[in-house]
Amino acid sequence: MHISLDGRRDLAGQIYRQLRAAILDGRLRPEDALPPTRELARHLSVARNTVSVAYDRLMGEGHLTGRVGSGTFVSAAGAPAHTATPGSALRPKPIWDSISPWPGRGTTSDRVRYDFRVGVPDTELFPHESWRRLLAREEPVHGYGNPAGHAGLREAIARHIGVSRAVRTGPGDIVVTSGIQQALDLICRVMLEPGDRIAVEDPGYPPAQLLFRSLGAEVVRVPVDEEGLCVDALPDDARVVYVTPSHQFPLGVSMSLRRRTALLDWARRNRALIIEDDYDTEFRYGGRPIEPLQNLDSSGHVVYVGSFSKVMLPSLRIGFLVAPAPLRQALRAAKYVSDWAAPMAAQAALARFIDEGLLARHIRRMRREYQARHELLTTTLPGWLTLVPCSAGLHVTALADEDPAPAVARMRAAGVGIMTLAECARSSSARPGLVFGYGAIAIDGIAEGMKLVR
Amino acid sequence: MHISLDGRRDLAGQIYRQLRAAILDGRLRPEDALPPTRELARHLSVARNTVSVAYDRLMGEGHLTGRVGSGTFVSAAGAPAHTATPGSALRPKPIWDSISPWPGRGTTSDRVRYDFRVGVPDTELFPHESWRRLLAREEPVHGYGNPAGHAGLREAIARHIGVSRAVRTGPGDIVVTSGIQQALDLICRVMLEPGDRIAVEDPGYPPAQLLFRSLGAEVVRVPVDEEGLCVDALPDDARVVYVTPSHQFPLGVSMSLRRRTALLDWARRNRALIIEDDYDTEFRYGGRPIEPLQNLDSSGHVVYVGSFSKVMLPSLRIGFLVAPAPLRQALRAAKYVSDWAAPMAAQAALARFIDEGLLARHIRRMRREYQARHELLTTTLPGWLTLVPCSAGLHVTALADEDPAPAVARMRAAGVGIMTLAECARSSSARPGLVFGYGAIAIDGIAEGMKLVR
Repeated sequence: MHISLDGRRDLAGQIYRQLRAAILDGRLRPEDALPPTRELARHLSVARNTVSVAYDRLMGEGHLTGRVGSGTFVSAAGAPAHTATPGSALRPKPIWDSISPWPGRGTTSDRVRYDFRVGVPDTELFPHESWRRLLAREEPVHGYGNPAGHAGLREAIARHIGVSRAVRTGPGDIVVTSGIQQALDLICRVMLEPGDRIAVEDPGYPPAQLLFRSLGAEVVRVPVDEEGLCVDALPDDARVVYVTPSHQFPLGVSMSLRRRTALLDWARRNRALIIEDDYDTEFRYGGRPIEPLQNLDSSGHVVYVGSFSKVMLPSLRIGFLVAPAPLRQALRAAKYVSDWAAPMAAQAALARFIDEGLLARHIRRMRREYQARHELLTTTLPGWLTLVPCSAGLHVTALADEDPAPAVARMRAAGVGIMTLAECARSSSARPGLVFGYGAIAIDGIAEGMKLVR
Repeated sequence: MHISLDGRRDLAGQIYRQLRAAILDGRLRPEDALPPTRELARHLSVARNTVSVAYDRLMGEGHLTGRVGSGTFVSAAGAPAHTATPGSALRPKPIWDSISPWPGRGTTSDRVRYDFRVGVPDTELFPHESWRRLLAREEPVHGYGNPAGHAGLREAIARHIGVSRAVRTGPGDIVVTSGIQQALDLICRVMLEPGDRIAVEDPGYPPAQLLFRSLGAEVVRVPVDEEGLCVDALPDDARVVYVTPSHQFPLGVSMSLRRRTALLDWARRNRALIIEDDYDTEFRYGGRPIEPLQNLDSSGHVVYVGSFSKVMLPSLRIGFLVAPAPLRQALRAAKYVSDWAAPMAAQAALARFIDEGLLARHIRRMRREYQARHELLTTTLPGWLTLVPCSAGLHVTALADEDPAPAVARMRAAGVGIMTLAECARSSSARPGLVFGYGAIAIDGIAEGMKLVR
């Protein structure tokens, strides 16, 4: 419990107010023990009586209770609710104390003029009119819908990813989800017991790791080099490995064919499942595309997950998974117990959006746009940054010789919204570097912003 | 493994084809052991050689492998995929073998002319035009949205349930979910460890129980009588109790005030959480409404959950929870790791639908409509059925003196779609009875259908 005292006036009042605020906003929770007055007084370098006065006042107001022989506690029911529903002695599982949203997808502040946020597409260029027309055209749907998803949408997705990403699939393999995050959740529900090990890339995608930890899985970080995940470093007892082979998050490298083969071999040998997250590689600007693991897999050890957040709008919350036969029924049941089925009207509209060629047209258009941004970004990097080779997606990563935090602080002061590699991956071992997203910033903004970066 | 032989011709071929089908559609899975030829031959009353011929053919095709000294197994990789993705040795956690969707919300067959399905509102009378107009009017939303939900929608929900259901809440207490099912899931993620006990009503709502079981919780069934849940029968070590106090599912009784108070006392005493599912009581046809547990609760032991599936459309997939302060942050984080946030356009449209008074108007209209159906149903029950008193919601339950299954078989043959109390609750202790939903059937249909029931 952090208490800071300012000056020497009204020390008891200062302690009282800070403890009270902590109780009211939930930092101190019902049944939490307070330190003994003697200990807190020593810690704050004040007289013991000063702390006692503060405690007594909180007790008088019902915020604290004293129990003979066992100390002072936050009251179970005494804390007046600061919002409409009351506080209580209930607590979430301890794991939730350490799970808080990753800031990488948050909204930016008004002070950001050059927004290099990662993982956000350009929604200005989306054909909103066509989309709303499709939404409004939908016939009313009765009932709750199929847990696997709208049949027409599953057919459309199967065709779309078959053509655009060489995923071998049919509508029966697909479960429509609320984005990749839910696809990962369903897979974990079906495969993982608490305590099971799941291997992830280091550096890697924080929201996935937060999910895995929240489910009680043991997350094992495995290094990534210029060929992608270091398969040799995988622990043999991992039940699941989560990878982004086509455009590694956040480094941007593509997993080499050799590593892909080795990873598939590893999964077969250890009867482990590979989750292949292919989140943004419909935007590809050159180089030979490597088949997804899903395409190379002949033994059914890969679940392929994708979403429409990058190729359309993140706020749609529509994604999908492609599952091998033995997992399919359980995955559908997992979707059913989780939230029954995806909303039908948006699914039906998306099916038409794909069938009428609007998605393919939008992707073609955005690929040209993003390619121009990608080129401008990669050709205007300052000398102290070294590009990690990358020819797809919506962000590039550049390595620095030293900690870029001071430079980033100056950039942010000048209105450049950018994340360090360490922030982007929450990895202690991340090398110094910066991650430039170019979905939320147009070509002019990149030109201006890069001047400031340089 | 069920194999049925027809006549005496081509017995080996019959066995071969049935085993092959079982392997291809996943009933027999990779690594499953087949019975020894001698045993299967005895079981099927055929010559041992007949079984051997079938096994050999399957081995030749790679569907089976023989291992010296240990028998015959379904091949790990040999089974050709019957859909696009291959089979594998991977298996879901065993719990998923026993989780399959409850048929109570499924679509009905064409043979059903009188559809007394439970829990489905009348979507024909929904103001689809107004709703689509609102959807189409929405401004594009950038980014992923707030995990707690659209701010305007949370304000609208707080006002709506404050007025219509006397729930004491503000927008800060609310998390917008994909329906009640997801609200339950988020609460369980936050509160339950595998093996923890969760108490449910018996008879009770099957989809909730399927969810709880899938999460590894131990589901304890607690009897319901005419006053609602028998609080005295609650196990003291339950961490969570899931109840439908306003309109018990499926019996329809309302929990007495005495029991409500006792349940709140029990929760405080045992530091347990009450989940109050208030799924359809905006439709009330008389009697004095009893305050929700949430309103009576002064100690923060209740999470109130609701949805727009019954008052609007099930396919919207929008619901919410109202949480006491200590659980709020964890519940938001649980929504975040589960699927990030609800789709924004539908949330914004729903906020306007509520703000512009369209929801209140629709509820008023539907209450009149459903009240007429409720009255017709309850006044035309045949003599062998006894109504369980009930003055709210979208279904009524009637008890029978004896097992209604034979009568139901005759009704179904005549085109009446109806469930027995036992089917509706998957409860071994359910009394004989029938459950009549009246959301999916108009007043004329009820009149005609009840003639057949009589």
